[in-house]
Amino acid sequence: MNTDPVAYIRQTIRSVPDWPKPGVTFRDITPVLQDPRSFRVLVDLFVYRYMRQRLDLVAGIDARGFILGSVLAYELNLGFVPVRKQGKLPHRTLSEDYSLEYGNAAVEMHDDAVKPGQRVLLIDDLIATGGTMLAATKLLQRLGANVVEAACIIDLPELKGSETITATGLPVYSVCQF
Amino acid sequence: MNTDPVAYIRQTIRSVPDWPKPGVTFRDITPVLQDPRSFRVLVDLFVYRYMRQRLDLVAGIDARGFILGSVLAYELNLGFVPVRKQGKLPHRTLSEDYSLEYGNAAVEMHDDAVKPGQRVLLIDDLIATGGTMLAATKLLQRLGANVVEAACIIDLPELKGSETITATGLPVYSVCQF
Repeated sequence: MNTDPVAYIRQTIRSVPDWPKPGVTFRDITPVLQDPRSFRVLVDLFVYRYMRQRLDLVAGIDARGFILGSVLAYELNLGFVPVRKQGKLPHRTLSEDYSLEYGNAAVEMHDDAVKPGQRVLLIDDLIATGGTMLAATKLLQRLGANVVEAACIIDLPELKGSETITATGLPVYSVCQF
Repeated sequence: MNTDPVAYIRQTIRSVPDWPKPGVTFRDITPVLQDPRSFRVLVDLFVYRYMRQRLDLVAGIDARGFILGSVLAYELNLGFVPVRKQGKLPHRTLSEDYSLEYGNAAVEMHDDAVKPGQRVLLIDDLIATGGTMLAATKLLQRLGANVVEAACIIDLPELKGSETITATGLPVYSVCQF
């Protein structure tokens, strides 16, 4: 392993050209996950960052945000809350729309997923335009949560999502940038 | 906490009547996940079961199977491989169809997700008819994996999924049954 854990994670991420469409390079974290060593280094970067912070819950965004979010919740002895795509949660839900390149999508949470005042770390694998993270943050705030940080593995700064999120007053953490 | 961890998990699962359709009772694990104590007890049931087994990878099924699967991979020092719904994986994939109540669906894996001979634990949150688990097992076996067990939180034995899977020679583990 490279002595720098961030460089090690960054070089283990696979770049897939022209996916999901021509001209776009997709950053694929599956090679990081499937190797026990890089998976551990990745998780531990987040564990070390948050282990001394006062937190109550980790909220992970459907579906890749579940992978890192649930490990982190377990390691930090916190609860885990899924922020799901529309129509997946069976109990009473709150919904928040956001814009995609073509049309709209929505994220949902159970209305009893968070208690007012709980300190929540929000996790996804990647920040692009930031639309999903911002919609999830609004949902959490409508439930009275104190969203402490929006964290991801990969930031795509050219798409200005992390800049937009930071401008709302919510700190952003990313392991690496492309 | 109830002194019996299995009873404690079972009673923390929420039963939602008439979801996703009239007459069906949905078993909702989100209350187990969002409480740090029940989440830890749940994960540890699986950690204790598999910590002395020789395994290389945990494969988790999209999307709720990611939650337990990734924690377990980290705790057991294994790699994590996502078995995804169609069209989600960017690299070269293998696909396996299975039947739903109406129509068909497919699960996919990257063709380099598993090396021949690797010992894989397959994880999902729930076994109903077993169709998804069987399709995922076939995918893993096509890649040369040795699938060691199919594990879930909840089994619905009336739907005979676990019976069907066991009949193929693959052991099934579930924490509780409804």
